[in-house]
Amino acid sequence: MTFETLASALAASSSADIAMHRDFLASAHPADIAEFLEDKEADVDWQVLDLLSLGKQAEVLGYFKRHEQVALARSAPRARLAAIVTQMDPDDRADLFNALTDDEQEALLPALAQAEREDIRRLAAYENGTAGAIMTSDYAVLSPQLTARQALDTLRREAPDKETIYRAYVVDPDRKLLGAVRLQDLILANPRTPVDAIMRRETHAVDVSVDQESVAREVARYDLVAMPVVDRDGRIVGIITHDDVLDVLTEEATEDFHKSGSVGELAQTVGHATIMMLYRARVIWLVLLVFGNIFSGAGIAHFEDIIATHMALLFFLPLLIASGGNAGAQASTLTIRAMATGEVELSHLGRLLGREVMVAGLLGLTMAVAIFGIGYWRGGADIALVVAIAMIIIVLVGSLIGMTLPFVLTRVGFDPATASGPLVTSIADIAGVLIYLGTAQLVLF
Amino acid sequence: MTFETLASALAASSSADIAMHRDFLASAHPADIAEFLEDKEADVDWQVLDLLSLGKQAEVLGYFKRHEQVALARSAPRARLAAIVTQMDPDDRADLFNALTDDEQEALLPALAQAEREDIRRLAAYENGTAGAIMTSDYAVLSPQLTARQALDTLRREAPDKETIYRAYVVDPDRKLLGAVRLQDLILANPRTPVDAIMRRETHAVDVSVDQESVAREVARYDLVAMPVVDRDGRIVGIITHDDVLDVLTEEATEDFHKSGSVGELAQTVGHATIMMLYRARVIWLVLLVFGNIFSGAGIAHFEDIIATHMALLFFLPLLIASGGNAGAQASTLTIRAMATGEVELSHLGRLLGREVMVAGLLGLTMAVAIFGIGYWRGGADIALVVAIAMIIIVLVGSLIGMTLPFVLTRVGFDPATASGPLVTSIADIAGVLIYLGTAQLVLF
Repeated sequence: MTFETLASALAASSSADIAMHRDFLASAHPADIAEFLEDKEADVDWQVLDLLSLGKQAEVLGYFKRHEQVALARSAPRARLAAIVTQMDPDDRADLFNALTDDEQEALLPALAQAEREDIRRLAAYENGTAGAIMTSDYAVLSPQLTARQALDTLRREAPDKETIYRAYVVDPDRKLLGAVRLQDLILANPRTPVDAIMRRETHAVDVSVDQESVAREVARYDLVAMPVVDRDGRIVGIITHDDVLDVLTEEATEDFHKSGSVGELAQTVGHATIMMLYRARVIWLVLLVFGNIFSGAGIAHFEDIIATHMALLFFLPLLIASGGNAGAQASTLTIRAMATGEVELSHLGRLLGREVMVAGLLGLTMAVAIFGIGYWRGGADIALVVAIAMIIIVLVGSLIGMTLPFVLTRVGFDPATASGPLVTSIADIAGVLIYLGTAQLVLF
Repeated sequence: MTFETLASALAASSSADIAMHRDFLASAHPADIAEFLEDKEADVDWQVLDLLSLGKQAEVLGYFKRHEQVALARSAPRARLAAIVTQMDPDDRADLFNALTDDEQEALLPALAQAEREDIRRLAAYENGTAGAIMTSDYAVLSPQLTARQALDTLRREAPDKETIYRAYVVDPDRKLLGAVRLQDLILANPRTPVDAIMRRETHAVDVSVDQESVAREVARYDLVAMPVVDRDGRIVGIITHDDVLDVLTEEATEDFHKSGSVGELAQTVGHATIMMLYRARVIWLVLLVFGNIFSGAGIAHFEDIIATHMALLFFLPLLIASGGNAGAQASTLTIRAMATGEVELSHLGRLLGREVMVAGLLGLTMAVAIFGIGYWRGGADIALVVAIAMIIIVLVGSLIGMTLPFVLTRVGFDPATASGPLVTSIADIAGVLIYLGTAQLVLF
């Protein structure tokens, strides 16, 4: 039994052959089943899901991409959907709920038990992109007065429900977070020792409204399995687990990378995006960049006379324009990624700029040397001089623009990653045209 | 007591005041202590480390950046270093060992106990970038015949040493991996149930020589806390933990992002890189790109006559060159990131190209419409026609280059991320010059 034989059985619509895969599916990982069902029709999905336990159906659904989850949810009778949703992880469940229309949400809620209903309402209320939106309500709490044995008994009773009981959180009667205790420490402790004496008080917690990226960075920094989330009064309201952190960081890295190539937000993964989705994500930046390049064109047109008398200048035009853009892209790329990983902040700008002047100066000098000979060969000493001087200034200016722009954008509330490829290159291009042809005008006239 | 008061005490060299921070440091997170000690002199580091237990000293050292670890290791007497190294996590320890010179390695080894010596030798032998190089030897194994109670007793004895006992691995007498058992399942089980009956057999494991990125992607895919690593015969040799996976994925994302801005490999984080390191990481690409732009320049020089008779063409030159490069950068960015996250493979190229023709065709058309009016205004109907036709072809060709190049690079053994910014833009630029001025020649002569 493999996914291939299952696919054949499904293609042949042979229910006997499909049913034979029950044991195979029971031992298959939900992520693999979800991938197998990707892009399949809803009735095929249901044929396969029918062979699974309700808990596993919920797990598989949890691994579906959001839009596929929604499609499947829409194809299910309400009672059936409610049964699966009840078994889902609270955070996945709340995300799915948020992706449904108001009418669908209203239809689903009455079919759920009160506890799930309230849990969904509570989790779904947090704004997208905050700690509250990615946390789960599936965690174990203990009171500090319990002994290690009592604590273990409590966890034993609660374990099957809890996403992670590797760490249980110790709270006072108001659910204020006092500390955390690791499962292994409870096991190691004398059974009569109170939790109070075993727990670690130096527990990192984040506020429910904190940005999901900073939570993810903190979890990564401290190598945590899970991070507790607290409300304004310090009461625990959820935890964020290591796998959700991984998802956040991967998603952010993808977004930043896309922005570096002047691709806008894409609601879908590339493989699943429609032609119109891709068009929309790309057209805005392409058209916007037209304006930047029109300025460069206007700059060139302004210097038409000097070009007409020294056509040799044309040969170096792409090179000098591009070098400023390239140097700027390098500087902004380094800055943006260092900002994204939390390594560099606005307060470092002075020191970074000082260093950048040195680095860019050296780079410009290297480029000037590299290009001087070609300049001499194509247009003589005058052109060589123009090209070399312009190159140093252009690389320096481009680099400083590239390094400063991410900070400026952050300051005015934009995402600095937007600056990397497109914006910096356009601005540096315009600067390049003006510096190159301006230098030519000064030297050659 | 805070890090600020500690800093003042250190600045004043007041040993009494420094010593007062012992309790504060005992409760501080090792990651925070490591950050505090960053960039401080070695003797200051040792003053602070002296206040910590040996185990915590090792933890703090584990959070140091590699070059700081090495610097500190070099400043320590051999016996002292050996004592700390013995306490370090096996994977951190092996990495530090690999960063030392041969002489330093030879000096350190005899000071260690046999077990640590062998462990270091074994872990340090794996090639950088493989599963073997990031795994730790700190995991718990159980035999399937043990009862749940005996298993818990075993773990109790071994726990303080093991990086994660949330999952213990079940092995046969040859250490062949049979399955895994979660700590919580052992606690929940009847104490007399054999491990054999509790363990999960569907354990994902990776080969020790597998690329670290694919391991990281698999751990992310299955939401694992840890992934066992096996040798060719299926014997367990280590585990890779979720926090190391996070480090790998963040590092890879940074590298890819840097490449998108044509920045070469940087051995250091941006904040800590020296001017020469930054210069080296940037100069190679900048100079290489000169050649690409020289070709563009030669292309323009080749069409000097048509430009001289139609100077209006110059106005649109930057725009048409840049649009091909921008469209190509978009296409390659989407492709590269989808390859990096494992979503897209070579086998999808046909389907992707078909879709890209549609998307790029629409984009080119949009751009042509946007620019036609400006062309008419600057140079009349002829120029408008040239600009519009050239734009469609350039955006299409640039996009197809951008989508194909990452696959070509992968095929010939290069990292596709290299293609994103610089290479695609250069090639698309040259194509843009030739298409634009070639179209002009055809239409205007």
